[in-house]
Amino acid sequence: MKKVAVVLSGCGFLDGSEIYETVLTLLALDKAGAMYQCFAPNIDQTRVVNYLTGDEANETRNVLVESARLARGEIVDIEDANGDDFDAIIFPGGFGAALNLSDFALQGEHCQVIPSVEKFAKQFVGAGKPLGFICIAPVMIPKICGEGVTCTIGKDPDTAATLSKMGAKHETCDARNIIIDPPHNVVSTPAYMLGKSIGEVAQGIEKLVKRVLTF
Amino acid sequence: MKKVAVVLSGCGFLDGSEIYETVLTLLALDKAGAMYQCFAPNIDQTRVVNYLTGDEANETRNVLVESARLARGEIVDIEDANGDDFDAIIFPGGFGAALNLSDFALQGEHCQVIPSVEKFAKQFVGAGKPLGFICIAPVMIPKICGEGVTCTIGKDPDTAATLSKMGAKHETCDARNIIIDPPHNVVSTPAYMLGKSIGEVAQGIEKLVKRVLTF
Repeated sequence: MKKVAVVLSGCGFLDGSEIYETVLTLLALDKAGAMYQCFAPNIDQTRVVNYLTGDEANETRNVLVESARLARGEIVDIEDANGDDFDAIIFPGGFGAALNLSDFALQGEHCQVIPSVEKFAKQFVGAGKPLGFICIAPVMIPKICGEGVTCTIGKDPDTAATLSKMGAKHETCDARNIIIDPPHNVVSTPAYMLGKSIGEVAQGIEKLVKRVLTF
Repeated sequence: MKKVAVVLSGCGFLDGSEIYETVLTLLALDKAGAMYQCFAPNIDQTRVVNYLTGDEANETRNVLVESARLARGEIVDIEDANGDDFDAIIFPGGFGAALNLSDFALQGEHCQVIPSVEKFAKQFVGAGKPLGFICIAPVMIPKICGEGVTCTIGKDPDTAATLSKMGAKHETCDARNIIIDPPHNVVSTPAYMLGKSIGEVAQGIEKLVKRVLTF
């Protein structure tokens, strides 16, 4: 039975992990007979959003605590993660990937991935194990996997151009499909970067999970 | 195209709507070609839980705002809901159904459903439209649908006994299946009252959604 690490960044698409993408990832893993463990960093969220108004809320929430909400309490601090225990790693999207796991939303091409996440993810790169990136999470690929990796964030020209400046090879893709880079063992899908419905997003994520498990 | 109202109670199984049950409901509705609209009451949550520790947090969160998080911002205050606009109604579970939509967790057999939720749900009962209840949400059935309705909360003897005292006819059921009461147009499934995995819970919820749409 394959074991997959799923890295979360909070709970909600505007300030943490995209909830539907995360649940669809866990569903696809479970249906495929794989085990999963969710991880998140024990840091404050960069921001908290009121989803009713869309405005920033004057609140502080912790990424690990809110990710625990999304993981039904079954979460481990990413500082305690060991890549040797897993066969693959998947990053669901949500703006938390660009706000909490990295600072891409603020720094663009000059972004950094936070050390605990980069260290854990690079264990998979070093061991030649598969990595899956969903939605906006592929912006971390150049920092984690190095330059020259083929991937997608859908078709947004600005984000695609920034990714290219960082050294990635961007390919346009719709939400029902995936982009595969076999030599680097990297799979990506645009999900809610483009998706209009949960059913559409589910198709891309199912394909990503299947491919991650069959590398 | 059928339109279904989905009533939320926050975001998280210990103090709001069960996230996976909600997402699986929306996924099943979308796959079946139905439209959905999420609703929630604009009230404070009865409690807020820290999902990392399991302890109650010293915080106040609003049910409508946190439900908006789960609904990707696409939420309507249940005070503004009109049953005439929908063909069916579904209540995902999570302890919020027993803490925020009703006070079952505190009052047991003497519980009440909050007026805005009871009023909206009773429009479906009055019009003979189907109602679906997931996980712990069936504890609201006697108050919404009246006595004599056959339903399930899984196999927990205490909760089943309380439901019976309230006038329901309880039937044991596993998470992969549903209990149907055709005369009352009511379907229920135990989901995470019993379910061990997200794939198992998905099976029961898919059956519930399919049955709700074919009444």
